[in-house]
Amino acid sequence: MTAFSRFTPLAQSLPATVPFVGPEAIERQRGLKVQARIGANESGFGPAPSVLARITEAAPEIWKYNDPENHALKTALASHLGIRSDNLVIGEGIDDLLGLIVRLVIEPGMPVVTSLGAYPTFNFHVSGFGGRLVTVPYRDDREDLDALLAATRREDAPLVYFANPDNPMGSWWDAEAIITFARALPETTLLILDEAYSETAPAGSIPPIGALIDRPNVIRTRTFSKAYGLAGARVGYGIGTAGTVQAFDKIRNHFGMPRLSTEAALAALQDQAYLEDVVLRIKTARERIAAIAAQNGLLALPSATNFVAVDTGRDGVFARAIVDGLMEHGVFIRMPGVSPLNRCIRVSTGVAADLDLFEQALPDVLRRFR
Amino acid sequence: MTAFSRFTPLAQSLPATVPFVGPEAIERQRGLKVQARIGANESGFGPAPSVLARITEAAPEIWKYNDPENHALKTALASHLGIRSDNLVIGEGIDDLLGLIVRLVIEPGMPVVTSLGAYPTFNFHVSGFGGRLVTVPYRDDREDLDALLAATRREDAPLVYFANPDNPMGSWWDAEAIITFARALPETTLLILDEAYSETAPAGSIPPIGALIDRPNVIRTRTFSKAYGLAGARVGYGIGTAGTVQAFDKIRNHFGMPRLSTEAALAALQDQAYLEDVVLRIKTARERIAAIAAQNGLLALPSATNFVAVDTGRDGVFARAIVDGLMEHGVFIRMPGVSPLNRCIRVSTGVAADLDLFEQALPDVLRRFR
Repeated sequence: MTAFSRFTPLAQSLPATVPFVGPEAIERQRGLKVQARIGANESGFGPAPSVLARITEAAPEIWKYNDPENHALKTALASHLGIRSDNLVIGEGIDDLLGLIVRLVIEPGMPVVTSLGAYPTFNFHVSGFGGRLVTVPYRDDREDLDALLAATRREDAPLVYFANPDNPMGSWWDAEAIITFARALPETTLLILDEAYSETAPAGSIPPIGALIDRPNVIRTRTFSKAYGLAGARVGYGIGTAGTVQAFDKIRNHFGMPRLSTEAALAALQDQAYLEDVVLRIKTARERIAAIAAQNGLLALPSATNFVAVDTGRDGVFARAIVDGLMEHGVFIRMPGVSPLNRCIRVSTGVAADLDLFEQALPDVLRRFR
Repeated sequence: MTAFSRFTPLAQSLPATVPFVGPEAIERQRGLKVQARIGANESGFGPAPSVLARITEAAPEIWKYNDPENHALKTALASHLGIRSDNLVIGEGIDDLLGLIVRLVIEPGMPVVTSLGAYPTFNFHVSGFGGRLVTVPYRDDREDLDALLAATRREDAPLVYFANPDNPMGSWWDAEAIITFARALPETTLLILDEAYSETAPAGSIPPIGALIDRPNVIRTRTFSKAYGLAGARVGYGIGTAGTVQAFDKIRNHFGMPRLSTEAALAALQDQAYLEDVVLRIKTARERIAAIAAQNGLLALPSATNFVAVDTGRDGVFARAIVDGLMEHGVFIRMPGVSPLNRCIRVSTGVAADLDLFEQALPDVLRRFR
């Protein structure tokens, strides 16, 4: 298999790694069929009916490029959040924005601080631009704010990543701790505060927008992929000072946003009643996952997200056996990638039928591997 | 407006330029309303009805991430083109793929060869990664293959861009000339052969897939944005050797493809009868644009694309006045950016009602500025 001979040394040095293997690939590789898709922290509750109606209504306009300035969506989000449009950048999911941020900040060899076992796609982008990952262990299944701060200072790191609520553990900090952390960072360190799961977080855990909006070294990222039920649409956004978010315009794919995705996000934002209902359904599903875990002698960790990390009480080999075993029953879940987090399995919330399958399959799988 | 203080020197050096200003921005800036959208080489004929049906059918699944391996679309395209799936990379439009290619090949200061006045978004990506643009003038309104080859050799350039058919001029070369050019390039130069307009090109102008498929230093890019009528979906693809296209997996946004866009592209590919019909309608519209030009004493250049470059017989100032003047009538068109190409205006093909507006407005605008 012959490749072009003159890719950059950096490109040649990179492995062809994929941050996550999709359930479709697992189906193809193992000859299995996913029946309960509760592994990728998508929302099986789906988007609002009003969103589906908007997609059908807008479909005939798909021959037009989307407005490259994303004016309508930025205006709607600004109004929703109580900020200005120029505090916002829109991207093709948070994944896209993470890549752009790394590109704006990191040159080969520069240190980037994150937690050991946090978001693999962020790490993928850091490696992709030649950054050097400096990882800090979780403490009590939470990202360790003190240690992240210390590592950032020690390394004089230009970039630090922190998710609140956290993925893959579902844990969280209260808003005061986050604000204190952000304010303690050197102004030469950019904080990515990933709030992909902000809609499902407990009261008091998400800093008010105003608390950090004046800090040029903070970008908060959010998405329509989780509680809004639009993972397949690829709509994320970043919140920061006007000066900081304007930097994205220098490098982003200006005509990258899909038109129907933008329409879907606009409709989703307008339907807050549906969102509230989904958040309740997510809460109910979390409780059910915890109950199923308990019935099987496993311990669900508290969760502020649309998934639950369940402590298997053993190690990563055991958790992997459960993940692979459940897949044989058509139940797709995932697990954290590194120790000691990988003693857990990670189960996304979903509709009752999906959790029924999980409930049925789990005892069989555990019996086999215990 | 305060920005983060430690963006990379490269990022800090870049202007916040936008490759193209969207018609929506023009509407907002000038307080005008676009009535005939024939400026961005979109397809006003729209996608097939079967595509719209598929979008509505697939919409309820939008809560799921798209398959990151793009297995279904790659399989369908491979079958359509008579190649293997591993000769293909899927991206969020050719624009996305261009950015990835530049990133894989270019380090700051490296020369990149293109034609003076060719695709601005490619130039945007080259500048964005610190590349040095080496431009070659058009000759007789065609990209100058001999001069491109000479510049590539002289500069020992790792990357050269060439579009066939060409945008913004609509001109083309025959397949033999393209193949000769590609084979004459050093193996240390990667050719981006942009075939965004391949569906509307005359017989004999597009090299057979087999003619270049074994060359690790050639990537051909194509899109569903033009004749397929799916610009707003953002689906492009690249064709190359398995080794070369595999490099994209090292850096691409694996979960970047929108689910409904993928479904739309699959449906569009299946409906070749619709595509054939649209290609005929594009041809008819090109002839009508040429006739309107002639009625007004302007000369339409021959076109192999879904737009027509019309020579105004004067300079860029005059052409700009026509573009701006037409917009006052609600007719959105564009024009090439540099001399001598900018003596032309560029009118996209579209439905009869759009061309009616163009026909009505053009004499008024010309009367004012002549």
